[in-house]
Order: sequence, then structure tokens, then C-alpha cells
Amino acid sequence: MKIAVLGTGEVGRRLASKLVALGHQVTLGSRSADHEGATAWAAEHDAAHGTFAAAAGGAELVVNATGGMVAMAALEAAGAENLAGKVLVDVSNPLDFSEGFPPKVATPDGASLAEQIQRAFPDARVVKTLNTMTNTVMVDPARVPGDHVVFVCGDDPAAKEAVTDLLRSFGWPDARIVDLGDLSGARGTELLLPLWLRLMGTLGTADFNFGILKA
Amino acid sequence: MKIAVLGTGEVGRRLASKLVALGHQVTLGSRSADHEGATAWAAEHDAAHGTFAAAAGGAELVVNATGGMVAMAALEAAGAENLAGKVLVDVSNPLDFSEGFPPKVATPDGASLAEQIQRAFPDARVVKTLNTMTNTVMVDPARVPGDHVVFVCGDDPAAKEAVTDLLRSFGWPDARIVDLGDLSGARGTELLLPLWLRLMGTLGTADFNFGILKA
Repeated sequence: MKIAVLGTGEVGRRLASKLVALGHQVTLGSRSADHEGATAWAAEHDAAHGTFAAAAGGAELVVNATGGMVAMAALEAAGAENLAGKVLVDVSNPLDFSEGFPPKVATPDGASLAEQIQRAFPDARVVKTLNTMTNTVMVDPARVPGDHVVFVCGDDPAAKEAVTDLLRSFGWPDARIVDLGDLSGARGTELLLPLWLRLMGTLGTADFNFGILKA
Repeated sequence: MKIAVLGTGEVGRRLASKLVALGHQVTLGSRSADHEGATAWAAEHDAAHGTFAAAAGGAELVVNATGGMVAMAALEAAGAENLAGKVLVDVSNPLDFSEGFPPKVATPDGASLAEQIQRAFPDARVVKTLNTMTNTVMVDPARVPGDHVVFVCGDDPAAKEAVTDLLRSFGWPDARIVDLGDLSGARGTELLLPLWLRLMGTLGTADFNFGILKA
């Protein structure tokens, strides 16, 4: 599949590299066409890079892996016309570090960032997933033993199924892909970040994930 | 131990009943001395009931099991002098249902309810715990199979150890009592509630809990 990964940080590069390894045609999107990190990544992985708009425009599926506080600006740069009708996988977290660590989760009016993105780009098919774990676990769930989970939610069932297929290709078994229903489920997963960050500190590692145990 | 449980809802009665069963001298505290539910509970369990102030005044350890949005008022009614020097176990969640379901988590200024309580009652020794699961699991963790966890945090190490002892007596093994450090860890556990509520809906049961899996 032709996939655009927007965001050249650790998360974006990790996802883009995994997608390349899985045989997808990946373009890493960044603010400028000559972004140094994106250029280096593309050369190393025999893949493409370009502006947010160029990347999204040529893609069938778009991954938002930009920082949550700049995600809206990045998607505006990508352009509504380049997102329309496409599955838009949002893996970002709206973490506001403006007052230092720990950051606050920015959820104006109680809505998640994913819902804000869906409102701003009503023709995109937004699916929230993967934002509740470190990037190495996202693409290699076997790295953490046991029945830990990945959450997925979105308003478009077909888009959610397409993203679930991607998760399966990353190594996530069906039983551990937890469907939270419509996109408002992202409120819960985005607000999980303060606990995640706290645990990263107390456990001394980011290599962990949450499980759900039932009676 | 002489324990006051403030709050006559399902959580308060469940905790109070467990503490009676464990041999503690329990007083269930409510707004009025003749609260119908508290009177009935006390008669049934051969235990005591009384106002928030009477309950807290006679206790060595106080449990806040009131609804999070009325917790501050209940603790003010209990009285700072009746809380001073005592371990105050906060199991409540500041869920604001004023705009319907799902509720928002009320964390003014980014601080947790537990921290607000500690600020308002600086001589109490506040420990946050048990707020991330349904009340039946709180007092009977074996009800849910597997390595699910309970979080504990607080600024007073001795108070936290006393609460950890209580958790052990409820059946929580040490390896599943997760110390999140100081009381600001409650920001993470209180913000877990939107995901918990969402999962209750999608799983169709409250009989579940979270686990933490490490690489």
C-alpha cells in the first residue's frame, strides 16, 4: 500500500521503517521538502520523503505521527484535499510540556485530539491507535511478553478494519486488539498518558504495556 | 484498628464490610447521624455509624469513599482536627457527570483530587489507592484471575506502608501493589477512569482490571 507517515520523530521513523519492511511504499512527510532527518531516513531505507502535502497527496493511507501539540498544523499543511476519503491513523498524544514535566494532556472541551482532527477534517477517516505504548512495542509487540493490548477506535468501521489489518501485520494477535468503539474512545487512551509516563519513571523503562484482565 | 469509612455508597459499604470481616472496628460515616443506609448497614454488620465528624474523630485511619465531586465537602464536615495526623485513604474519583455520560475527570489546574485534599488538609497523611477498579475487585482481587494491579501513591512513606498492609490483608500480593511514588501519581490513576468507563461499556462488565507487562 502507498502510505504516508507524517512526522520525522522517533515514532514516525519507527513506524515508517516497519511499514517499509512489510513491503509498503512509504513516504516520510515533514515540514520541508529538504528535511535533513527525512532525507537521511529515506536514503537509508530506499524510501521516499517529502512535504506533508506531497506525502499525503500520494498516499492511500496516512499516519499522523507528529507531536500532538503540532498535529493540527501539520495536517493543515498536509491539506484537507490530500486527506479526504483516506484512512488517517492518529498515533499522536496531545502532551503539553509548556509547564515542564510531567506534561498535561490537552483536551479542550473534554474532546480528544483524535476527535478534534476528525472535526477539522470531516472527510478523513480517522482511527486512533498505538498511542498508549512506546514506539518499539508498537511495531514489535512480542518484545513485551504476555497479553498486553493495543486499543483502536474510530467512527468508520471499514477504516478501523483496515487499521486492524495493519496492526495484525505488526504482530498484534486479534485477541489483543481492543476495539473501543467510536472515536470518542480516544479520550480514554489519550488520558492514559499521565499514568504511562509515571510508570515509565517508577519502572525505569518504557518497555512495558498495559493488559486487561477479565473475571 | 479503628477505621472510619466516609461514604455510604456501594464503594464505602463494600470497603467497610470487608474491614469488619477482617476484624477492624469500623464506623461508617455519612452526612447525618440518622442516615438510613448507614443505620441499616451498621445493624447488619454489628458495626457503628455516625456523622463524618464522629466517624473520623474516633478513628485511627480514615477512608474517603465519598463521591469525588462531594469529597471536599465531606472532609470539611469531617473536620481538619479529626483528620490531623491520620492516614487518609482516598479511593474516590472526581467524575463530573454534570454534562451526562461519559463524565469528565475534574482536575482543576492539572492537580488530582488527592493532591487537592492533601493541600486542604495538610496534617492528614493522604494515600491514593484502589480508585482504578470496581469495588468488588478492590476487596477480592482473586475475583479476577491473573496479574492485575493496584496503584498506591502518597507523600508520607509510613502512611503508604500502612495502606499497603491493608491492601495485603485484602488479598493483594506485594508484586501487584504498584507504588507510583508521591501523591502526584494520583493524576495518572484518576485520569485512567475515562478508559476504565469506556472498557466497562465495550467489555460489558465492570469485573476487570489493568495489568502491567514488562519486557
